Amino acid sequence: MAPRFAFELSATDGRARRGTIRMRRGEIRTPAFMPVGTAATVKAMKPQAVRDTGADILLGNTYHLMLRPGDERIARLGGLHEFMKWERPILTDSGGFQVMSLSELTQQSEEGVAFKSHLDGSRHLLSPERSMEIQRNLDSDIVMAFDECTSWPVERDAAAASMHRSMRWAARSRAGFDSGEAHAAGATLFGIQQGSMFEDLRWESSHALQDIGFDGYAVGGLAVGEGQEQMFAVLDYAPELLPRDRPRYLMGVGKPDDLVGAVARGIDMFDCVLPTRSGRTGQAFTHDGPINIKNARFAEDRGPIDGDCRCAVCETFERAYLHHLVRSGEILGAMLMTEHNLSFYQQLMAGMRAAIEEARFGTFAAEFTTRYGRTKNGTG
Amino acid sequence: MAPRFAFELSATDGRARRGTIRMRRGEIRTPAFMPVGTAATVKAMKPQAVRDTGADILLGNTYHLMLRPGDERIARLGGLHEFMKWERPILTDSGGFQVMSLSELTQQSEEGVAFKSHLDGSRHLLSPERSMEIQRNLDSDIVMAFDECTSWPVERDAAAASMHRSMRWAARSRAGFDSGEAHAAGATLFGIQQGSMFEDLRWESSHALQDIGFDGYAVGGLAVGEGQEQMFAVLDYAPELLPRDRPRYLMGVGKPDDLVGAVARGIDMFDCVLPTRSGRTGQAFTHDGPINIKNARFAEDRGPIDGDCRCAVCETFERAYLHHLVRSGEILGAMLMTEHNLSFYQQLMAGMRAAIEEARFGTFAAEFTTRYGRTKNGTG
Repeated sequence: MAPRFAFELSATDGRARRGTIRMRRGEIRTPAFMPVGTAATVKAMKPQAVRDTGADILLGNTYHLMLRPGDERIARLGGLHEFMKWERPILTDSGGFQVMSLSELTQQSEEGVAFKSHLDGSRHLLSPERSMEIQRNLDSDIVMAFDECTSWPVERDAAAASMHRSMRWAARSRAGFDSGEAHAAGATLFGIQQGSMFEDLRWESSHALQDIGFDGYAVGGLAVGEGQEQMFAVLDYAPELLPRDRPRYLMGVGKPDDLVGAVARGIDMFDCVLPTRSGRTGQAFTHDGPINIKNARFAEDRGPIDGDCRCAVCETFERAYLHHLVRSGEILGAMLMTEHNLSFYQQLMAGMRAAIEEARFGTFAAEFTTRYGRTKNGTG
Repeated sequence: MAPRFAFELSATDGRARRGTIRMRRGEIRTPAFMPVGTAATVKAMKPQAVRDTGADILLGNTYHLMLRPGDERIARLGGLHEFMKWERPILTDSGGFQVMSLSELTQQSEEGVAFKSHLDGSRHLLSPERSMEIQRNLDSDIVMAFDECTSWPVERDAAAASMHRSMRWAARSRAGFDSGEAHAAGATLFGIQQGSMFEDLRWESSHALQDIGFDGYAVGGLAVGEGQEQMFAVLDYAPELLPRDRPRYLMGVGKPDDLVGAVARGIDMFDCVLPTRSGRTGQAFTHDGPINIKNARFAEDRGPIDGDCRCAVCETFERAYLHHLVRSGEILGAMLMTEHNLSFYQQLMAGMRAAIEEARFGTFAAEFTTRYGRTKNGTG
């Protein structure tokens, strides 16, 4: 029988780590990228096609699912895996970030966040206890603690107060999780480090979380508009404050070069809507940087999106056809662009994993970043 | 080497016919249903997935493709098959129907139809000669003659005048087709019978077309609002006016019970947007009639769309999940509904073909129609 939760580091190269998480529903090879399946679907992709890109785990959004179709309905239908026919692990966020960015008339208090649904105006409360209950109803494998999304930019005092509340909520999340049946069923709980751009607050948060105790730890409060340079400045120290023998998850990140730089700084897990969302609007990721397939220069371009990509889309379809589909608003355009982008991301993760195993991560990262960054310098 | 065009009838059962069309790009088993790939894509389906539903041939729309991405561009990109990566036969319509229903400021004359594009207001002319040129640029396998879409309801004199113009245009289509390279490349040309609901006009049109000579013949001017009863009344005699040794194509039809009734009356080929278009809005076809998956009664229904359907969607996903996806406007909902509907149509065609081969078409048709029609009587 598979363990409830085990994390094994099989290789390191500098700060970059190659590991494996083992859970009841399967293994997660790290560094791992988790496609976002907001509303019980990775948009424009069948679940088997998501797996075929190389994904070991998906992310589901607690906020969206509690509102539609409802976490209790999903529980009655056998849980999120059974509902959407994804058999492998699912990580669910706590809903804390989305409730502040998407809902209306939010009221925050020590208890939690009261809000009106962006779909129908109905009133709800999200709290550490309620978030644990929802994630249990979804039958999530990796449950995230409910925390407060610290705004950015922020003064030190406000960042400290927000972090302290998140740490109290982390303890309530732990208690709520432990009082339910999730643990017995094989799920696990991750805590989230906060502290914005302040190293001493990140240090304090890390110790508070470890006092509570979690199977994994996220670096929260980044990718909120601070830019890559400031994010990397935090990642130069923040992951190292967390236990070496637990996975480290950077929430909501990011662009391909963000992933490379974060792996170099000791991050093991990522999620981001970028490959799916930007694919639907025509942005394709390539080894030479992102391109907008709607650009007129692709109208009669018979090459693949990326000549070095091994995905089914690049093996079959030409840029000219994708240009036509996306320009025409065709669903097939969204499907193919999403499939390519997710495949590109998973190939990047596989490339980083192989490079760490073979102790050549530094070279891999430098070569990828140099080539990828060329378009920024105007040559793409 | 495959013949340019051959049609072989292997079985008949009453007026129902089981045949095979052989062309350079593959065989078409008849009775055949052609999914509509308007803008060089069967909406929400990869080409291989369309093939996997059982489709032998697609329909492409001349009007849409001439405007976007443009027939000359498609020719430069290797033709429509190469552009959209569908290797099997493609039938293209003449553009005559769409130009009247979709474009703006149309001006009809004996020469053809001048119009402004619905996309950008640019000015174009569609004529028999231009339609042949466009369909040649698309590298169509089955080219349709350019005809005038007779309005409905219509007086006899107007129907006769419209049919006579279509017959003059049929002769010009024949001449235009023969003067190009399409014939040499392996394409073929179909004529279109007109005459509205008037049997003597249908008779006259059929003879005019046969005097010109075509490899196949369409029954045009139906499915324009007249209803199934009147359509069947025309089909009681119209197909029999056409040569027995050539395929007969009923354009723009139809609902599953329309197909069964038309095959019973000697039709060999169909196209219709219904399974694709209605799938995207939540209508699913089942052996017990159509259902709207958005209906609240499916919210927690764990059964497949159709328990007797053998498609990949029905094997995997539950009505409750499809209900959620379509209600949420998720692309995956459109994808799965379309795949099911096209599979349902192709299974129906395969069932009719087998029934004709085994001389039990009458029983098959009666059983299908009785069960399918139950929802109309309020039991579904």
